[in-house]
Amino acid sequence: MNLLEATLASIHPQDTVWRARAKARLDQLIMPHWALGRLMDLALDLAGISRSMAPPVARKTIVTMAGDHGVAAEGVSKYPQEVTAQMVFGFVGGMAGINALANVAGARIVVVDMGVAADLSPLASAGRILDKKIAPATGNIAGGPAMTRHQAVRAVEAGIEVVEQLAETTDVFGTGDMGIANTTPSTAIVAALTGLPAADLTGRGTGISDDQLARKTAVVEQALATNCPDPTDALDVLAKVGGFEIGGIAGVVLGAAARQKPVVIDGFISTAGALLAQLLCPMSAEYIIAAHRSAEPGHSAMHTHLGKQPLLDLGLRLGEGTGAALAMPLLDAAERILTQVATFDEAHVSKEQP
Amino acid sequence: MNLLEATLASIHPQDTVWRARAKARLDQLIMPHWALGRLMDLALDLAGISRSMAPPVARKTIVTMAGDHGVAAEGVSKYPQEVTAQMVFGFVGGMAGINALANVAGARIVVVDMGVAADLSPLASAGRILDKKIAPATGNIAGGPAMTRHQAVRAVEAGIEVVEQLAETTDVFGTGDMGIANTTPSTAIVAALTGLPAADLTGRGTGISDDQLARKTAVVEQALATNCPDPTDALDVLAKVGGFEIGGIAGVVLGAAARQKPVVIDGFISTAGALLAQLLCPMSAEYIIAAHRSAEPGHSAMHTHLGKQPLLDLGLRLGEGTGAALAMPLLDAAERILTQVATFDEAHVSKEQP
Repeated sequence: MNLLEATLASIHPQDTVWRARAKARLDQLIMPHWALGRLMDLALDLAGISRSMAPPVARKTIVTMAGDHGVAAEGVSKYPQEVTAQMVFGFVGGMAGINALANVAGARIVVVDMGVAADLSPLASAGRILDKKIAPATGNIAGGPAMTRHQAVRAVEAGIEVVEQLAETTDVFGTGDMGIANTTPSTAIVAALTGLPAADLTGRGTGISDDQLARKTAVVEQALATNCPDPTDALDVLAKVGGFEIGGIAGVVLGAAARQKPVVIDGFISTAGALLAQLLCPMSAEYIIAAHRSAEPGHSAMHTHLGKQPLLDLGLRLGEGTGAALAMPLLDAAERILTQVATFDEAHVSKEQP
Repeated sequence: MNLLEATLASIHPQDTVWRARAKARLDQLIMPHWALGRLMDLALDLAGISRSMAPPVARKTIVTMAGDHGVAAEGVSKYPQEVTAQMVFGFVGGMAGINALANVAGARIVVVDMGVAADLSPLASAGRILDKKIAPATGNIAGGPAMTRHQAVRAVEAGIEVVEQLAETTDVFGTGDMGIANTTPSTAIVAALTGLPAADLTGRGTGISDDQLARKTAVVEQALATNCPDPTDALDVLAKVGGFEIGGIAGVVLGAAARQKPVVIDGFISTAGALLAQLLCPMSAEYIIAAHRSAEPGHSAMHTHLGKQPLLDLGLRLGEGTGAALAMPLLDAAERILTQVATFDEAHVSKEQP
């Protein structure tokens, strides 16, 4: 049994006893019933995930997976491919959006080279990033598969390995991505899994023009027509129209679920990875917290398919893990509601009138 | 000139030069243009409010205004009036929802007795709350005015005084409320100001039944018919169908605006106070940040009237300042985006392709 199979076999659902125990307490807090709404739903998830009435949430790690994409050659992005590697240097230098927002969340950032089209070995040797490079960029999905099935397994396993390496020092995982052109494979993934038309799902990514949007939509359609991914086989979808960082994110979700830790998924690309994890193991979705609804039109279809309602809706479209970082304080809040608020009996507050 | 008039005269708009300066920097950050969406809009507001490219946001104070309501006698709430005072003890004892959430936000809580129907002077003497009690509960608005016009002025001025007392040690204000039955006057206020029918605006507050909801709607209609508040005169609306804590919140908004500090308004009751502040001085709205959309049906109408889009939508209906506390980390995030993220030139990242 390989690492992927072993991981899938070790994923169990949330614990319903701990969920019920948490609900019994939340029902009695000194406030109108369930007056903190979705924060209380989140507290139930944290209790069910961590099997605890005091779910650990302090130690947060955002895993930002970077990879390049052959399909960038089709002109689907506003930025040149070299930006992927440049942004990795930006993350390591503390200069990017994710650095600023992880800082607010009190989260550590771990950057992983899943397949960047540049030699990042000096950063890896210096311990500044993790080296899980599968290959220097995927194949162009407009003309053939992104990767082999073997590479797809390796990409997912790399994500699991990263979680294994970090799990002892992490209470809450977050996911993030960097990869010029990666909304294109993500759109192909959600189109393949939902059967919805590419035209309804394709968005402007980094902010492309109307002409580029039409071109990008055609590229997604072509990628699906050329590769015929099997929507019942996550590894086939990943291999045919995916990306290395997307596979890595799927692995982070599976690894977190196996370790019974919550994983806060970021935006469009992270949710594509989460959809693949869900297809590999439906129970893994019970460990997923959807951070935000991005500006990409296909994101809502992803959330519907995943069965998740995102916490935030702030028009974000950056990736990197920024949305996950912004949502993380809500996990702290949910934990405090469970542990720090008194019940009516404890506080001697009068209950409802008959 | 009394304190209220002096405060209104000292409120100026946001500074457009600082907004433009902030925009020029945000336009150049190493990310697709405006890729952090509403967080970047928020950063512009913070720059325009504080006249700074590094808007101070560290020192946060949530002012939770408590008051009782004669209209509680009409059976519009699920809880008895004594709960208002009991919850003040809960706040002081650190046992309530706002304590848990202010803790996450790193915010201090200042509780103000604006008109609680209990003797809270021991708490005030001990310095645990501020005593601004106008009277021990308003009049029952179903049968007459809530308060005199003089009391309305005093309530708003009390809020201004609280800000004056705290401004030297506060970068960001938040508002909160406690007052059994106070969604009823808040609904009457938004109905009076917008002219919308009470039936479209009245909600379940603490979670009342269908019968109670019908009764509450009738009480709001009766309060408006009996008192005929003048929708062009905020002090008349406050006096006729308002509440002491609602007036106090209006004062906090005005005081913060006069001090050029952002004020994060909480839910339905706080937004009623903000609407009165806006009517007294439209420019004060430029200092308001709307924290969240509550479960009360009339809240969206309030936000529309105020011209604000709330940051969060989590089904909250607690008050106390809990939504303001949850939104506060987003202000930290907006500030960090402005101060900690590099520009394309600074980071040597390639710009858009031609």
